[in-house]
Amino acid sequence: MEIVELEKKHINSIAKLSKKLLDFHWKIDRYYRRGSEKTQEEFKNYLLKNFNKKNFKILVILDQKKPIGYFIGKIEKGKPHISPQKIGKIESAFLLERYRKKKLGEKAFKKLLEWFQKNKIRNVEVSVDSRNKIGVRAWKRYGFFEFQKNLRLDL
Amino acid sequence: MEIVELEKKHINSIAKLSKKLLDFHWKIDRYYRRGSEKTQEEFKNYLLKNFNKKNFKILVILDQKKPIGYFIGKIEKGKPHISPQKIGKIESAFLLERYRKKKLGEKAFKKLLEWFQKNKIRNVEVSVDSRNKIGVRAWKRYGFFEFQKNLRLDL
Repeated sequence: MEIVELEKKHINSIAKLSKKLLDFHWKIDRYYRRGSEKTQEEFKNYLLKNFNKKNFKILVILDQKKPIGYFIGKIEKGKPHISPQKIGKIESAFLLERYRKKKLGEKAFKKLLEWFQKNKIRNVEVSVDSRNKIGVRAWKRYGFFEFQKNLRLDL
Repeated sequence: MEIVELEKKHINSIAKLSKKLLDFHWKIDRYYRRGSEKTQEEFKNYLLKNFNKKNFKILVILDQKKPIGYFIGKIEKGKPHISPQKIGKIESAFLLERYRKKKLGEKAFKKLLEWFQKNKIRNVEVSVDSRNKIGVRAWKRYGFFEFQKNLRLDL
C-alpha cells in the first residue's frame, strides 16, 4: 500500500472511485448527484485541469499500483468575513470500504497536512454530510471540530 | 416598520450594521474577522457591486426610514456534485437585537423566499456558526434542517 501524487495514468480509476462517493451521498439525499458516466467524465476533466496547479494536492492511495482511494487538498483565498488570508480545504476524500480502518486515510490526510503546513496554512476545513456518521467521526478523530452547520430548506 | 429593497442611500447604515454582525462572530471565534472601517468599506463595495444584479436580492428592514437589519439572498449555480442546477443562498442576515422576536426576520425571509420561488429555486441554503444557537434556532424555525457540518482543524 502506498500514497503517491496523482499521475495521469490514475485518472480513469480515480474517476470510477468518484462515482462510488457520489452514489454514497445520493443514497443519503437525492440533493446529491448520482454517479454516472457523465459525472466520471466531469471528474476526469476536473482532475486534468487541476492536478498540476500549485494550490492543489491530489493524493492517490494505491494497492499494488491500483488506486483504491484519493484525498484532494486545495489552498483557497479566505472569504471577506474571515480573518485568515488563505485556508486549506479538503475538497474530497474517498477510500474503498474494504481498505478502511487500516490508518490509510489518516496517513493520506497527514500528507495533506504536511503540505498545508509547508504552505503556512493555519486553518483546514472540510464539509461533511451530517448524516454521514462515519465521515464525521473520522474527521473528528483527525482533530477537526464542528464550527458551522449548513442548513437547507427544500421547496 | 417596513421591508424594502436596498437603495443607495441605505448603504452606509447597512455597512455599519455589518460591523455588528462581524463582531458578533469575532466574539465567538477569532477565525472571523473583526468589524472595522475597512470591513465596512469592503461591505459597501460588495453592496454597490451586487445590488442591481439579477441573481441578488438585498432587503433592508427599516424603522422610520432607518435601516435596522438586512437580508441578502443570492442565486448560485449548483456545484458539480449536487443535483440542482441552481440553488438559493442566504448570503447574510442581520437584525438589531432590540428588534428581534417581532417576526421581522421571518417577514424578510418570506420575501426572499417568494423571490427564490419566482426563480424556480428548489433548495435554499444558509451557513450558520454552530455556536450561534439563536441563529441555528431561527433558521430551523423557518423550516431549515441541518444537512452538512463544516469542520475545521486549526494548526
